[in-house]
Amino acid sequence: MTETPTRIARITGVDTFDVRFPTSRELDGSDAMNPDPDYSAAYVVLSTDAGDGLEGHGFTFTIGRGNDVQVAAIGALRDHLVGRSVEELCADPGSVSRDLIGDSQLRWLGPEKGVMHMAIGAVVNAVWDLAAKRAGQPLWRLLAHADPEWLISQVDFRYIADALTPEDALTLLREGRTGLAEREATLLERGYPGYTTSPGWLGYSDEKLTRLAKQAVADGFTQIKLKVGADLADDLRRMRTARAAVGDGIRIAIDANQRWNIGEAIEWTSALAEFDPYWIEEPTSPDDILGHAAVRQAVTPVKVATGEHVQNRIIFKQLLQAGAIDVLQIDAARVGGVNENLAILLLAAKFGVPVCPHAGGVGLCELVQHLSMFDYLTLSGTTENRVIEYVDHLHEHFTAPVVMREGHYVAPSAPGFSATMHPESLAEYRYPDGTFWAADLAGREEVA
Amino acid sequence: MTETPTRIARITGVDTFDVRFPTSRELDGSDAMNPDPDYSAAYVVLSTDAGDGLEGHGFTFTIGRGNDVQVAAIGALRDHLVGRSVEELCADPGSVSRDLIGDSQLRWLGPEKGVMHMAIGAVVNAVWDLAAKRAGQPLWRLLAHADPEWLISQVDFRYIADALTPEDALTLLREGRTGLAEREATLLERGYPGYTTSPGWLGYSDEKLTRLAKQAVADGFTQIKLKVGADLADDLRRMRTARAAVGDGIRIAIDANQRWNIGEAIEWTSALAEFDPYWIEEPTSPDDILGHAAVRQAVTPVKVATGEHVQNRIIFKQLLQAGAIDVLQIDAARVGGVNENLAILLLAAKFGVPVCPHAGGVGLCELVQHLSMFDYLTLSGTTENRVIEYVDHLHEHFTAPVVMREGHYVAPSAPGFSATMHPESLAEYRYPDGTFWAADLAGREEVA
Repeated sequence: MTETPTRIARITGVDTFDVRFPTSRELDGSDAMNPDPDYSAAYVVLSTDAGDGLEGHGFTFTIGRGNDVQVAAIGALRDHLVGRSVEELCADPGSVSRDLIGDSQLRWLGPEKGVMHMAIGAVVNAVWDLAAKRAGQPLWRLLAHADPEWLISQVDFRYIADALTPEDALTLLREGRTGLAEREATLLERGYPGYTTSPGWLGYSDEKLTRLAKQAVADGFTQIKLKVGADLADDLRRMRTARAAVGDGIRIAIDANQRWNIGEAIEWTSALAEFDPYWIEEPTSPDDILGHAAVRQAVTPVKVATGEHVQNRIIFKQLLQAGAIDVLQIDAARVGGVNENLAILLLAAKFGVPVCPHAGGVGLCELVQHLSMFDYLTLSGTTENRVIEYVDHLHEHFTAPVVMREGHYVAPSAPGFSATMHPESLAEYRYPDGTFWAADLAGREEVA
Repeated sequence: MTETPTRIARITGVDTFDVRFPTSRELDGSDAMNPDPDYSAAYVVLSTDAGDGLEGHGFTFTIGRGNDVQVAAIGALRDHLVGRSVEELCADPGSVSRDLIGDSQLRWLGPEKGVMHMAIGAVVNAVWDLAAKRAGQPLWRLLAHADPEWLISQVDFRYIADALTPEDALTLLREGRTGLAEREATLLERGYPGYTTSPGWLGYSDEKLTRLAKQAVADGFTQIKLKVGADLADDLRRMRTARAAVGDGIRIAIDANQRWNIGEAIEWTSALAEFDPYWIEEPTSPDDILGHAAVRQAVTPVKVATGEHVQNRIIFKQLLQAGAIDVLQIDAARVGGVNENLAILLLAAKFGVPVCPHAGGVGLCELVQHLSMFDYLTLSGTTENRVIEYVDHLHEHFTAPVVMREGHYVAPSAPGFSATMHPESLAEYRYPDGTFWAADLAGREEVA
């Protein structure tokens, strides 16, 4: 042996990347609130001196401008990470989560919301990626087989204990293990059901909508989604078009991306009800718990869904307490990372509300599949009425991209959290000095 | 004339400053969640080519680390400002507010919360500062005498119209003008009542608490505030000490700075009830509307107060709709600036809940006095059960610092929003290159 066995491996680097993709040029991802997104990632890589070549990767998804602010926020967390023992970190990612959320000076910038909280989420997710890689496991399997008491130790019960106690959570996780082996076999065989938003972006023509909706059914999806909320006459026509394309047996969700006040949400959804929308997503501000409750009461049997912009477990807790939602949409990169999403999944299980994650963007499908698979294996115990959003964008930039089969997410087998992007993609799309942007910006200067 | 009269003055500069004061060394400002704050400002100066020497100043208050992230967020707004007509901007600050909040790519980083929203607030407040300076009026007077219809045009009713319509708001403002002249005379004579937190920081000894509490009464304050929530035995002793120092006729508010879960908040407040606390402030997370409602129901007649960390008008709306608070505590620099605070003041007036602003920090007293004075003059019509927090920190850095007289804020007479810091203070406390920090950091290097 050339090294002493007592050497402790430590985090040596927290490197950040401002990665932006020029998606606005194709109108991919256009909706009533976001007409021209440039899908972007504030990306972080944790490196170590363990000598095993393993890194922890994580990111916040943004839609362009401000990605630099998000990168700066991740950078502000560097001192909390560098020098820490890799083994301790990976044995207890919750300790990182608590340290970062508990930094009282940084906490002032939230608390637990917005740019600073998403930065914490990116770093915490990178720690989980590293932990799963070191364990040689895809994250879903690491979580599903983890000791329930240890999982509970990863959850911050502050501000949610009135709705979910550690004892409640432990009971849910212990009971959830019954039948785990059978479900895991089913998961490996069939995958986890997805639904697709690809046909429904606002910027698409009716012909493209029809073509993509039919394609979605042919691909095995049983649910699609349409963006709505810009113009009611257009939405009626598009909803009629979509229903005609897919027939009655396919669910069509609609998504207003927070466009409406409460009254508008009720009127607009009611107007579209004749085409049997399955859920109305983000009818209004994600902050408006009481508003969602009012909408839900008025539009039933259309279900109410939200979550991609819900800032933390405290708002989710209240959405559940108030009976405001039928469908809870976690996002892997909006809240404080895996640890907070564990709290949210436990809350959903306690209240018996199905979780149908938000995904798309950059790498959100890659991440969130792990959380839904864990949910299925040891919490909900079912995939009934549960689907993960799927959008066919930008997967090629990841080293372990999602694999879809007959409308289902195939369970990832690569160790980690599927967060790792190709170095070539970082080099090409880093803003503003990656090869793509350098050429693009130089071209604009020539024109100007 | 050497210049053509048609030249349009434009915004030419958006300069940012990372200003930090080393307050943690004195334990000033210590509470149960914030043991060692370095009071800081992410500061912005709007300059123009109008040739009148007037600038718009604004800032976000933070408590140290992360102030650089906040500065970066303000910088991300620069392109929305530079080149705009100064006259148009000052005639309609709401147009800036709408532009900034409506930037769909930046909105993703909130929406309307956290770092990005506070950055918008700093810039919007700077525009109001410039507008009031150009009008030659202190902001409170500009607002109080503004046309009600114009004021309404400054408010974003999105997501609050279910609780407050533009028509409601117009009625409140029109009715609120009755007796304006008499109230303005009263305000100029007596000022606006304040209360002081100076005696009650957690880091202070009982002797210092007693001395400062007696001093507060001698200075004319009729309310003081104690930080609580770190240790119940300590809090019981400190509350007994404070009550003994001030007697029964003085109100003592208590402030837990979000330390508790719901159950703890109820138990702890109930335990302190024998000393007749006037309100319990921030008993739990500012996001927990339903939690505050539960606490309020359990601890009455102790009042429930929150707001300094409430992210936007949508949460305030729900706190009022749910009957969750007795006292609404606006903060001048947390939400989206004057425009959003107009919405919040109107909501409070609609629901008949008194507004008692949060202040202290860096410059928060200077700013928020204008909003309370406007509230008194044209909305609430009274100062009964209304007080502005006062902390005697860092006022010397402002060119028009607050003036206290017999426990009252003297109405400012200088044009603007009282946001302007001395250039010498910026030069000394700019981090890390101001004269104070450069010497301090060099000294630390020598020691190390």
